[in-house]
Amino acid sequence: MTVESTTGKASIKRAIHRKRRVPPGASPGTLVADPTAFQPTVRLIAYGPDDLEEVEIGDLQELEPLIGKHAVTWIDIIGLGNLDLIRRLGEMFKLHGLALEDVVNLHQRPKLEDYAEHAFIVTRMIEDGPSPTPEQVSMFLGERFLLTFQERPGDCFEPVRARLRSSRGQIRSRRADYLAYALLDAVIDGYFPVLEALGERLEVLEDRVITRPADMEAAQIHEIKRELLLLRRAIWPQREMVNALSRETSPYVTDQTRPYLRDCYDHTIQLMDIVETYREIATGLVDVYLSSVSTRLNEIMKVLTIIATIFIPLGFITGIYGMNFDRGASPWNMPELGWYWGYPVVVGLMAGLALGMLYYFYRIGWILGGGGKDSRR
Amino acid sequence: MTVESTTGKASIKRAIHRKRRVPPGASPGTLVADPTAFQPTVRLIAYGPDDLEEVEIGDLQELEPLIGKHAVTWIDIIGLGNLDLIRRLGEMFKLHGLALEDVVNLHQRPKLEDYAEHAFIVTRMIEDGPSPTPEQVSMFLGERFLLTFQERPGDCFEPVRARLRSSRGQIRSRRADYLAYALLDAVIDGYFPVLEALGERLEVLEDRVITRPADMEAAQIHEIKRELLLLRRAIWPQREMVNALSRETSPYVTDQTRPYLRDCYDHTIQLMDIVETYREIATGLVDVYLSSVSTRLNEIMKVLTIIATIFIPLGFITGIYGMNFDRGASPWNMPELGWYWGYPVVVGLMAGLALGMLYYFYRIGWILGGGGKDSRR
Amino acid sequence: MTVESTTGKASIKRAIHRKRRVPPGASPGTLVADPTAFQPTVRLIAYGPDDLEEVEIGDLQELEPLIGKHAVTWIDIIGLGNLDLIRRLGEMFKLHGLALEDVVNLHQRPKLEDYAEHAFIVTRMIEDGPSPTPEQVSMFLGERFLLTFQERPGDCFEPVRARLRSSRGQIRSRRADYLAYALLDAVIDGYFPVLEALGERLEVLEDRVITRPADMEAAQIHEIKRELLLLRRAIWPQREMVNALSRETSPYVTDQTRPYLRDCYDHTIQLMDIVETYREIATGLVDVYLSSVSTRLNEIMKVLTIIATIFIPLGFITGIYGMNFDRGASPWNMPELGWYWGYPVVVGLMAGLALGMLYYFYRIGWILGGGGKDSRR
Amino acid sequence: MTVESTTGKASIKRAIHRKRRVPPGASPGTLVADPTAFQPTVRLIAYGPDDLEEVEIGDLQELEPLIGKHAVTWIDIIGLGNLDLIRRLGEMFKLHGLALEDVVNLHQRPKLEDYAEHAFIVTRMIEDGPSPTPEQVSMFLGERFLLTFQERPGDCFEPVRARLRSSRGQIRSRRADYLAYALLDAVIDGYFPVLEALGERLEVLEDRVITRPADMEAAQIHEIKRELLLLRRAIWPQREMVNALSRETSPYVTDQTRPYLRDCYDHTIQLMDIVETYREIATGLVDVYLSSVSTRLNEIMKVLTIIATIFIPLGFITGIYGMNFDRGASPWNMPELGWYWGYPVVVGLMAGLALGMLYYFYRIGWILGGGGKDSRR
Amino acid sequence: MTVESTTGKASIKRAIHRKRRVPPGASPGTLVADPTAFQPTVRLIAYGPDDLEEVEIGDLQELEPLIGKHAVTWIDIIGLGNLDLIRRLGEMFKLHGLALEDVVNLHQRPKLEDYAEHAFIVTRMIEDGPSPTPEQVSMFLGERFLLTFQERPGDCFEPVRARLRSSRGQIRSRRADYLAYALLDAVIDGYFPVLEALGERLEVLEDRVITRPADMEAAQIHEIKRELLLLRRAIWPQREMVNALSRETSPYVTDQTRPYLRDCYDHTIQLMDIVETYREIATGLVDVYLSSVSTRLNEIMKVLTIIATIFIPLGFITGIYGMNFDRGASPWNMPELGWYWGYPVVVGLMAGLALGMLYYFYRIGWILGGGGKDSRR
Repeated sequence: MTVESTTGKASIKRAIHRKRRVPPGASPGTLVADPTAFQPTVRLIAYGPDDLEEVEIGDLQELEPLIGKHAVTWIDIIGLGNLDLIRRLGEMFKLHGLALEDVVNLHQRPKLEDYAEHAFIVTRMIEDGPSPTPEQVSMFLGERFLLTFQERPGDCFEPVRARLRSSRGQIRSRRADYLAYALLDAVIDGYFPVLEALGERLEVLEDRVITRPADMEAAQIHEIKRELLLLRRAIWPQREMVNALSRETSPYVTDQTRPYLRDCYDHTIQLMDIVETYREIATGLVDVYLSSVSTRLNEIMKVLTIIATIFIPLGFITGIYGMNFDRGASPWNMPELGWYWGYPVVVGLMAGLALGMLYYFYRIGWILGGGGKDSRR
Repeated sequence: MTVESTTGKASIKRAIHRKRRVPPGASPGTLVADPTAFQPTVRLIAYGPDDLEEVEIGDLQELEPLIGKHAVTWIDIIGLGNLDLIRRLGEMFKLHGLALEDVVNLHQRPKLEDYAEHAFIVTRMIEDGPSPTPEQVSMFLGERFLLTFQERPGDCFEPVRARLRSSRGQIRSRRADYLAYALLDAVIDGYFPVLEALGERLEVLEDRVITRPADMEAAQIHEIKRELLLLRRAIWPQREMVNALSRETSPYVTDQTRPYLRDCYDHTIQLMDIVETYREIATGLVDVYLSSVSTRLNEIMKVLTIIATIFIPLGFITGIYGMNFDRGASPWNMPELGWYWGYPVVVGLMAGLALGMLYYFYRIGWILGGGGKDSRR
Repeated sequence: MTVESTTGKASIKRAIHRKRRVPPGASPGTLVADPTAFQPTVRLIAYGPDDLEEVEIGDLQELEPLIGKHAVTWIDIIGLGNLDLIRRLGEMFKLHGLALEDVVNLHQRPKLEDYAEHAFIVTRMIEDGPSPTPEQVSMFLGERFLLTFQERPGDCFEPVRARLRSSRGQIRSRRADYLAYALLDAVIDGYFPVLEALGERLEVLEDRVITRPADMEAAQIHEIKRELLLLRRAIWPQREMVNALSRETSPYVTDQTRPYLRDCYDHTIQLMDIVETYREIATGLVDVYLSSVSTRLNEIMKVLTIIATIFIPLGFITGIYGMNFDRGASPWNMPELGWYWGYPVVVGLMAGLALGMLYYFYRIGWILGGGGKDSRR
Repeated sequence: MTVESTTGKASIKRAIHRKRRVPPGASPGTLVADPTAFQPTVRLIAYGPDDLEEVEIGDLQELEPLIGKHAVTWIDIIGLGNLDLIRRLGEMFKLHGLALEDVVNLHQRPKLEDYAEHAFIVTRMIEDGPSPTPEQVSMFLGERFLLTFQERPGDCFEPVRARLRSSRGQIRSRRADYLAYALLDAVIDGYFPVLEALGERLEVLEDRVITRPADMEAAQIHEIKRELLLLRRAIWPQREMVNALSRETSPYVTDQTRPYLRDCYDHTIQLMDIVETYREIATGLVDVYLSSVSTRLNEIMKVLTIIATIFIPLGFITGIYGMNFDRGASPWNMPELGWYWGYPVVVGLMAGLALGMLYYFYRIGWILGGGGKDSRR
Repeated sequence: MTVESTTGKASIKRAIHRKRRVPPGASPGTLVADPTAFQPTVRLIAYGPDDLEEVEIGDLQELEPLIGKHAVTWIDIIGLGNLDLIRRLGEMFKLHGLALEDVVNLHQRPKLEDYAEHAFIVTRMIEDGPSPTPEQVSMFLGERFLLTFQERPGDCFEPVRARLRSSRGQIRSRRADYLAYALLDAVIDGYFPVLEALGERLEVLEDRVITRPADMEAAQIHEIKRELLLLRRAIWPQREMVNALSRETSPYVTDQTRPYLRDCYDHTIQLMDIVETYREIATGLVDVYLSSVSTRLNEIMKVLTIIATIFIPLGFITGIYGMNFDRGASPWNMPELGWYWGYPVVVGLMAGLALGMLYYFYRIGWILGGGGKDSRR
C-alpha cells in the first residue's frame, strides 16, 4: 500500500508540475527540445481491407513510397526526442505549426482542433501499473492517414494492432477515422482499471477509518482525493473532445464512425461518474475521520476524568489524615486519629465514595454501556 | 438496523465496483460472458386489443412464428448467461452491435439511443427488500416489438403483466411504446419505497444524533450519504433518459404516449428532489454530530476541571500539614500544628475554599444550570 | 419557542415523508383514496362584471345549470376524500386523467401543464400559524372556469373572495386567468409571514449562539436549516411554474394578465432570495457555534491547567517534606526538617513558585486579560 | 470598531426583515402607507443644453406648467409618506399601478421593467457612513422625464446635480436616459467606499486571527460574512438590471447612452468580484480561526501534560516514603528510610526522573523548539 | 520562505484594495491623476516586413510624422503619471473617453471592448520575481497601430521586441493584430512561472503538514489560497477576453490571427485548470491540517491519561499508609503498618497495579503499537 501510494503521489506531482519549456514571449510554433525526451522510433502500419504492411521506419525517406499506397496509413511515433524528425513529418503531411508545438509541449489538455488539412487530437493515456502516469498522445487525422505521437514506449494500443493484423472485426475495412476511434477507445478504456484500483484503495481506507482510524489516514484520504483530482483533470476535457468529435461535422470523421464515438463518449461519462462518486465518498470520509478522532478523544478524556474524579478526592481524604496536627495540644486536633473505629470508618467512607462515583458514571453512560435517564451528555 | 445497513452497504459496493469485463482495446460490439450471470429464461407476451398470448420460450425457433402475429410482441429475457441466444435475438430483430454490447456490460448509465431499426433504452431497476440492489434493464423498442433484458429473476413488472392479462386500463389497445412507458413507470416508481425506507432510517438517526450521539453514528451517516449518492447516480441519468424519450421526436414513440412519459419524467424529478433533500439533511447531520461530540467533550472536561480545581488545592493544604518539620528545632517550624484550634481552622479553611469554588462554578454556569452575568464562557 | 420548533419539525417530517399511495406499476390515471382525507365541500362562486352568485353545492347535479351562466365560474373543492365526486367533475369539465391523478397524489411539485382543454396548475399553499404545513392546491384553468382542489379547510383565499364579493379592484371585470393569478398571488404572499417568523427565530438563535451557546443549539440550527430546505423545495418549483405561466403562450392566459404574473414571479424570486440568505446565515452559524464550543473548551482547559500547574508542583514539595526518612540515621536524611528557618523557607519557596506561575500565566494572556510579547499562544 | 460593527449589523437586520405591509391576497396595485415613512419633498430640475430650472415643489399644481417646458425634466421625490401625492404623480405621468406599488413596498430587488409609457427601474443605493443602510430608489424613465423616488433624505446624487448646474461634461446636452445612467452610475460607485471599508475591517481581522485569535472573532467573521451576503444580494440583481438596460432595446434608452451603461455594468461586475473575493477570504478565515483555536488547545494541553507527567510520578515517590510502616515491626518495612544515603538517593532519583522527562519532551519537540527524529507527534 | 510569503501577501493586499480615485458621481471619462504614478516614457516601434524604426519619444510632436509611415506602429507608454500626454494621445488616435478613463483607473478587470475606431483591450501582466504584483496593461488596437499603456517599467515584452528587431518568425510580415496577440501571449505565458513557484510552495507545505504540522501552517495555507484566489481573479476574465478576441468578428482582428488567439485561449484554460487544482489541493490540506492537529491532541491526551491513570491511584495507596491513625488506640487502626510483610506487600500491590494498567493500555493500542481485539477506541 505504502509503495503504491508513494509512487502514485510521485506521478501526480510530475503531472501537475511539468515545467513549460517554451519561454514566455517566444514565437508561436517554436519547438523546444526536452533533453530528457525519448529518441523516437517510427512504426508504420498501412492497410486496406485485404492487405497490411507493417514497417519499422529507420529513415524518413523510407516512408515516402509507402504513403498513399494503402487505404489507411498509420504512423506511430514513439518518443519526442528528435525535433528534426517531427518538423520533417510536419512538412510531409502539412501539419500546422501550432499543432506541432502542442505535440512537443507536454502539458496540453485533451482537445480537438480542426485545421484545414487535418484534425488535431490531443488525448491523455494512462497505463495501469505500480505507478500510473498519464502520457500525452497527439493524433493528426487526415483523410487517409493517422499520425500518433507518444511520449515514451509502452501503450495500450497493442489490442488494436492485433485486430489490424488479424483482420478481426471491421477495422481493416474502415477508414482512418475508425482507427482513430479505436485508439481513443483503447485510451479511454485504459482508465477503468486504474480507477478500479483506486476504488479498492478507497474502500480499504473506508473500512479502516470506520473501524480503527490511525494517524496517517487523513493524509491517505488527501492523497486519494489528489489522485482523483488529477484523473478528473485528465478525463474531463477528454469527454468534451470525444463529444466534439462525435457531434461536430469535422470532414475527417465519417457518419459511420459517429455512433462508435458516441459509445466512446458514454464511457467518458461513466468515468466522470465514478470519479465524482469517489470524490464525494472521499470527502465524506474526511468527516468520518474527524468525528472518529473526536470520539476517541472523548473516550480518552472519559478514562482520565473517571480516574481523576475517583482518586483525587480519595487522595485528599488520605491527605487529611496524614496531617501532623499535635493531638496532644488540643482535643480538637484530629481526634479521629485516636478513635477506635477511625481507620475502618475512613476506609469505608472512601470505598463508599468510590462506589458512588462509579455508579454515577454508570448512570450517565460512561462505563459498562450504562446510561438511563441521565444519558443526555 | 445493523443487518439492513450492512447489506445495503454490500449492495452499494457491488454497484460502484463491478469490474468491466471487456478488455481495453477490444473490438466494439464484443460480447464477453460473465460466468456468474444467470441462464436466461425467455418469456413472450404478444397482444392486441382483443387477444393475448403468453408463452415461455424454450428454443428461439419457437419464437419465429409468433413475431408479428399480434399488434405488440414483448419478449422478456431474464438472465444474461447465454451470449449465443442474445446474438441470435440480435440478428432476428436487427439489434445494433454496440447496443448488444451494452446489454451484457452491466455498468451502463441509463440512457436512450436511437438506432435506425429501434430505440435502445437502458434503465436501472431497484427492488425494495432487505438489500436493494440496482439491476440493469435494457430495452429495445421497435414499432411492433419490445425486447427487455434483465440481469436476474425478480422484477417490478408483475403489475404491468397483470394489467395486460386482465386488459385493465388502455394498455392492450396501445402500441409498443406505451408498454415501454408502463415498464419504465414501474421501474421509476419502484424507487419510492426504497427512498422512503432510507428516509425513515435517516430520521431515526437524526433523532438519535440530536438526543444521544454514540460512536458509530458518524459511520452510519456516511453510509446513508453513500447510498443516497448511488441512488442519485442511478436516478439522475434516468431523468435525462425519460426526458429525451418524452421530448425528442423518436419515431418509435407516438404523440399519444408523450404526456404519459412527461408524467413519468415528473416522477424522476420528485425522486431527485427527495434524494437531494435527504443528502442536504445528512450533510447537516454531520455538523450536528460533530458539535454534539464537541459539546460532550466540554461536559467531560468540566467534570474533570471541577473535581481537579476543588481537590488539588485542598490536597496541597493537607500536604502542607503533613510535612515533618521538626517543631522542636524552631518555633517557626509549623507552629500551627500545635495550636489549640489548628485542625478545626484548617478544616474550615478547606471547606470554605471548596464552597467558594463551587459557588464560582455555579456562577459561571458549569453546575446546576447556574450562570448569571459571568456566563460568557 | 420549543413548542413552535417541535411542531415545525413535525410538519416537515410529514412533508418529506408522505407515502405514495399508488402502487408501482399501477395503471396511469388510477385514483387511490387516502382514508385520512377530508370529505369535500364544494363551493361555487360565479361572477361577471355586474353579478355574483355564491353557492355551497351539496350534490353535483346542482352544479350543472350554473356552469356557463356567468362570465367566470370558480368551483372550490375543499377535501379530497370523495374520489367519485372528483371523477364526475373530471368528466364534467373534461379534465385529463393524469392531471386528476396528480390532484389526489399529494406529493406533487408545483408545476404547470398545458392540456388541450385546460391548463393544470399545482401549487403549494402555506398558512402561518403555530405549525405551518404546506398544503397542495391543484387548479384547472379553462377559458371560463377555474377549479381549485384543496387538501383541507383553511386557506389564504379569503381576501380574494372578499374582493370578488365587494367588487373591489378590477377582479370582477377580468377573466378566469386573472382569478387564477389572484389566488396564486395569495398563495405566494402567504409564504412571507412564515419566512419572517423563521427569520426571527434565526436571529434569536444567532444572538444566543454568539453570546452564550448551549448544548441544544446545534440541533436548533439544524432544524431551521431543515425547514428552510423544505421551504426552498416548495418555493423553487413555484417560481418556475409562475414564470412558465407568465411567459409561455398558454391559450388560457391573456396578455392583460401577464404583467401581473410577472409581478407574482418577482415575489417568488424575493422569497428564494430570502430563503437562500437565511440558509447561508444558518450555515455560517454552525461555524460560529463550533468555534464557540472550541473556545469554551480552551477556557475550561486553561482553568484546569492553571490550577494543576500551580498546585501539583507545590503538592510535590509538601510531599518531599512529608517523607519519613530517619534523620537520626544520617545527617544527610532531610536535615532541612531540623533547620531553624526550614518551614518558613519552604513556605516562602512555594509562595514564590505560585506567584511566578501566576505571573507567567498573566504574561501569556491566560489570566486577567494580560498578554504582552509572549501572547502568541 | 465595535460601534461600526454593531450599527452595521443593525442595518443588516433591518434589510433582511422589513415586514411586507401589503397583506397576502390584497388587490394588486394597492398602496399601503408606512406610518414611519418620511413626508416627501419634491424637487424639480428641468434642463436643456442651454437652460436649467431648479424648483422645490410645494404643491403638485406648481408642477403642471413646468412639464415639457425643457428637454429633460427630473422630478426627485424624497420620502414616501404621502400616498396621495404618489398617486397623483402616477396619474400625471401615466405610471403603471404595479410599478407604483413597488415604489412603496420597500423590499424590491433591483430590476428593470418595461411598460408601455415608461421604463421602471428599481435600484438600491448605499451611503458610506457609520452605518451604511441600503435605500430603495425607484426610477421612472420616460422619453422626456425622469422620476426618482427615494426613501429618505441623503443620497449620492449631489455630484450629478452639480454637473447639471455647472453644465460640466455632456450631461446637459443629452436626454433623460443619460441622466438615468448618471444617477445609476453614482448609485453603483457608491458601493465602492462601503466595500473598501469592509475590506479594511476584514484585513484587520485577518491579521488578528492569524497572530492572536480571541474569543469574539468567530462572531466578527460571521458578521462580515453576513454583511457581504447582503451586499451581494443588493449588487447581484443590480448587475442584471444594468445589463438589461444596456443590452435590451428599451425604447427609452438611446444607442448613444448604451456604451456608458456598459461601463456601468463593468463596475457592477467589479463589485461582485470584490464581494466574492472577500467572501472566500472570510470563509477561509473561519478555517484559520478554528485551526488556531485547536492549536492553542494543543499548547494548553502540552503545558498541563508536561507538568502532570513530571510531578505526578515524583509526588508518588514522595508518597511512598511518607508511608508510616512500622520499621520496628520488620526489617522489610521501609528500610530505606534508615539508610545513611537514603534521602539523597531518593532526591537524586527524582531529579534524574524529572530531567529524563524533560529531555524526552525536548526530543519530541514539546519544549524549547526541540524535536529530532521523534518529532512525528 | 517567510520573505516570499510576506511580500506575496503585500502584493495581494494592494491588488484587492487599490482605492478608486474617481469620486462616485463624477462625469464619465474623467481622468484623475494618481500622485504615485510613474512619469511616462514613450517608445515607438514602427515596422513593416522590411523595415523597422525604434524611437524613444520625448515630445509627442516627434510622433506625428512617424504615424502611418510603416505598416504597423506600436507605441508603448510606460507610466501613467502624465494625464496631459494621455489626453493628447487620445485625441491623436481618436481613443474613446470611457476607454481612456479605464487606462488610468487601475482596477479594471481584463476585458475587450469594441469601439468604432479601435478595439480596447485590458489585461493584467504578472512578472515573476520575489514579489509578483499584477500590473494593468491597456491596449488600443487599430488597423495600423497598437498603443499599450503600462503602469510601470519592467514587462515581459522584451522577447517580442527582440523578435521584431531580428525579424525572427513571421511577426514583421503580419499586421497590428498579430502584434497584439504576441503581447497577450507573452502576458499569459508570464503566469506559468508564477504558478509553478506557487505550486512548489504548496507542495513543500503539503509535505510538512502531513509529516509535522506546526502552528503557523494554517495561516500559510490561507495565504496560498488567498494568492490563488487573486490569480484566479486575474486569469478568469483574461480567458473570456481572449476568447472574445478569437471568436467575435472584431474588424481589427484578421482571420489569420484567430488560430493563434485560440492557442492563447488554450493557455488561459490551462492556467485556470492549474489554479483550480491547486485551490482544491489547498482546501483539502486544511482538512489534513485540522485532523493532524486533532490527532496530536489525542496523542498528548493519551500521554497525560496514561501517566495520571497509573500514578494517581498509586499515589492514593501511598496516601492511605501515610495516614496517622493512632495504632495504639485500636487494633483496627491500620494494623497493616505493623505487619511483617506490610511494606513489601504494598509495594508489590502497587507494582502489580501499574503493570496491569500498562498491559491494559498496551491492549487498547495506546502504547508500543499494541492493540488486539480491544482496539476499537
